[in-house]
Amino acid sequence: METLRKRFGERVRQLRRDAGVSQEDFADKCGFARSYMSRIERGTSNLSLDGIERLAASFGITVEDLFRGL
Amino acid sequence: METLRKRFGERVRQLRRDAGVSQEDFADKCGFARSYMSRIERGTSNLSLDGIERLAASFGITVEDLFRGL
Repeated sequence: METLRKRFGERVRQLRRDAGVSQEDFADKCGFARSYMSRIERGTSNLSLDGIERLAASFGITVEDLFRGL
Repeated sequence: METLRKRFGERVRQLRRDAGVSQEDFADKCGFARSYMSRIERGTSNLSLDGIERLAASFGITVEDLFRGL
């Protein structure tokens, strides 16, 4: 099985695309640098609970939803 | 609402107690220092995806289950 970083990155990318938002716009919404959002989606970022909390809030979903299927 | 760190810490503590495992034994199982496990449960640790993955594996549950209700 792929690492959680990879699976989580793919989940974030899918949620963002489903919302029809560009990586740049979503990074701005989260208050993340565009390059950092790219690393999150590529699964090379070891995101922390605070970052996870911010992502879920920016998507308007629960953290449990953010990890749905992981 | 409390921070995710706090809510996650309470969730880990509850899961560990439900499993009937001491903090020390569970820290050993995860490969974490006892003091670090204590910080996780008190909500003062900004745990990362790799740490979250290790906790879920040590509990024998999915990451989605680990964040159930959060």
